[in-house]
Amino acid sequence: MTARMLVNGVAATQVSALDRGLAYGDGLFESIRLLGTVAPLWSRHMQRLTEGCARLQIPAPDPAQLWREALEVSRGMLESVLRITVTRGLGERGYALPASPQPTRVVAAFTPPPVAAKIYALGVRMRVCTIRLAEQPLLAGIKHLNRLEQVLARAEWNDPAIAEGVLLDSHGRVISATMANLFAVVDGELLTPSLDRCGVAGVARAEVLAACPQARVAELTLDTLLDAGEVFLSSSVRGILPVRSLDGCGYAPGTMARRLQQHWRNLGFSMEQGG
Amino acid sequence: MTARMLVNGVAATQVSALDRGLAYGDGLFESIRLLGTVAPLWSRHMQRLTEGCARLQIPAPDPAQLWREALEVSRGMLESVLRITVTRGLGERGYALPASPQPTRVVAAFTPPPVAAKIYALGVRMRVCTIRLAEQPLLAGIKHLNRLEQVLARAEWNDPAIAEGVLLDSHGRVISATMANLFAVVDGELLTPSLDRCGVAGVARAEVLAACPQARVAELTLDTLLDAGEVFLSSSVRGILPVRSLDGCGYAPGTMARRLQQHWRNLGFSMEQGG
Repeated sequence: MTARMLVNGVAATQVSALDRGLAYGDGLFESIRLLGTVAPLWSRHMQRLTEGCARLQIPAPDPAQLWREALEVSRGMLESVLRITVTRGLGERGYALPASPQPTRVVAAFTPPPVAAKIYALGVRMRVCTIRLAEQPLLAGIKHLNRLEQVLARAEWNDPAIAEGVLLDSHGRVISATMANLFAVVDGELLTPSLDRCGVAGVARAEVLAACPQARVAELTLDTLLDAGEVFLSSSVRGILPVRSLDGCGYAPGTMARRLQQHWRNLGFSMEQGG
Repeated sequence: MTARMLVNGVAATQVSALDRGLAYGDGLFESIRLLGTVAPLWSRHMQRLTEGCARLQIPAPDPAQLWREALEVSRGMLESVLRITVTRGLGERGYALPASPQPTRVVAAFTPPPVAAKIYALGVRMRVCTIRLAEQPLLAGIKHLNRLEQVLARAEWNDPAIAEGVLLDSHGRVISATMANLFAVVDGELLTPSLDRCGVAGVARAEVLAACPQARVAELTLDTLLDAGEVFLSSSVRGILPVRSLDGCGYAPGTMARRLQQHWRNLGFSMEQGG
C-alpha cells in the first residue's frame, strides 16, 4: 500500500496504540477525491466533518490546516484520494471522555481506485446484502469510525463482477450501498433514502440533492427499488455510477445518471474517462 | 498514562496509521484483571476473543503467545489490567477484507482503576442513559472495537458520584451498564438480560452464570429493574458491584451480591479489599 501521510502535521506512518480511534473507533473520517490541487467537494467534506465532530463532542480541526496538509501529502499526484481521519486522541483506559482532549489528525493520500470507463457507461452489478443495518439515530449520517457493519456487508461476496451491495435496515427499508449512497427514479421522480436512523450522508449525495432540487428523500422498499426505472450510486471517490443489475434484475443506465455524470464533469472530475 | 506494551510481540507504543482497527474499528479487545501472574478468568477471555475472531473472520491469536506477552508487560506489577487488542491489521483503503490478513496484536498492562472498599460494601449509584443501543445481532455479544455508543452513553453525565449508567435498547429493554453487565433479583430469582441483539457478553457475567446455575437470561423492563429486590453489576475489571441507587430509587446490597463477592475472593481476586 503506497500512501503519503501526515500525523498531526508531521510526516509519520504510525499513531499511538492508546489512541481512542483504535480503542473504540472514537473518531471520524472523510474520503476526498483530489484532482491535482483541486477538491471540488472540499467544502461539503469539511461541513460533514465539522458536524460529525460536534455530534461526537470532538474539537473540530481547522479546515485551512487540513487543506495545507492535503496539498502536502498529494504533491505531484495528478489524481488522488485523500483520507482524513480525526480521533479523540489519547485517553485513559475507559469510555469516559478525557478532560482535555487532544485530537489525532491523520491526512493520507492514496492512488484512486481504478474504475473502467465502461463501468461509467454501462453501470455496476449489485446484490442485496444479508446483514441489516442497526438503527442508531445519534450516529446516523456522520462518517464515524465504527464501520464493522460495512466490513461484514462487503465480506458477504467475493465475485469481482459484483461491485456493490444494497444495505437494508432492520425494517427492510433500503438505506444505501456499502460505500456509496443510492438513488432511484420511481414514476419519474428522483428518490433517495432517509439517513436519519442509519447510513452515512454522503458528500456526493448532498451534491446530487443540491443539483436536483426536485429530488426527494423518501422511504424506499426493496420492491420499489427492483421496480425502479433507473438506479444509480453516488460516491465522493467514484462519482456517479449507474446500476445495471440488482440480484439479476436489470436496469438501463438512465438520463438522470447521465445528467449527473455531466454535472460531475462540470465540477472538474474526469472519472468518466476511465479513472 | 502509564502502560507497558507489546505490538505484535515487540516493545512498541504505536501501530500503523493504516491499521483497519483505526480505520474501521475492525477488531476486538479484552480487558483482563491480573493478580501478579494469575488471571483467574483467562480461559473465558480467550474463549470470547476466539469467538469474536471467528464472527469477524479474523485469524485468532494463539492464547499461549498472548499469555507469554501478558506476563512480560505486567512483570513486577502486583495487580494490573491487561488490554489485549486484535485487529484485522493493514488493509487497502476500502471495506473489502484483505486476501491475506496479518492481524495486529497489542498487549498492554495498566494500573487497575481504584475502587474504594466502601463501594464494594455499599454499592454504586447509577442513572438511566438516554441513548438507546442499536440492535445488530451479527455484532451482539462480542467485544468488538465499535464502541461509540458506549462513549456517547458515558458522556451523558459528569457527576463523579454516579458510577455507571443503565443502557436500554430501542424497545426499552434493559441490556447492561456502559462497562459492566447487570443482574437483578426479581421475586427471588436471579435474572440478567439477553445479549443476542446488542450488548457485550461479559466474561464476569459468564462466571456469574456458571456459579449460579439457577440464574436465568430474561427480558427485563426498566420498571422491573426499579422494582427489583437487589441489583448488581459484574465486570472483569471491577468484580461484583452492588447497585445502591438508580435515578434515586434505592436498593440495599443483597445476599446474592455478597455471595458472588465471596466467589470472586475464592477465585483469588482481592478487589473487595479496596482495589
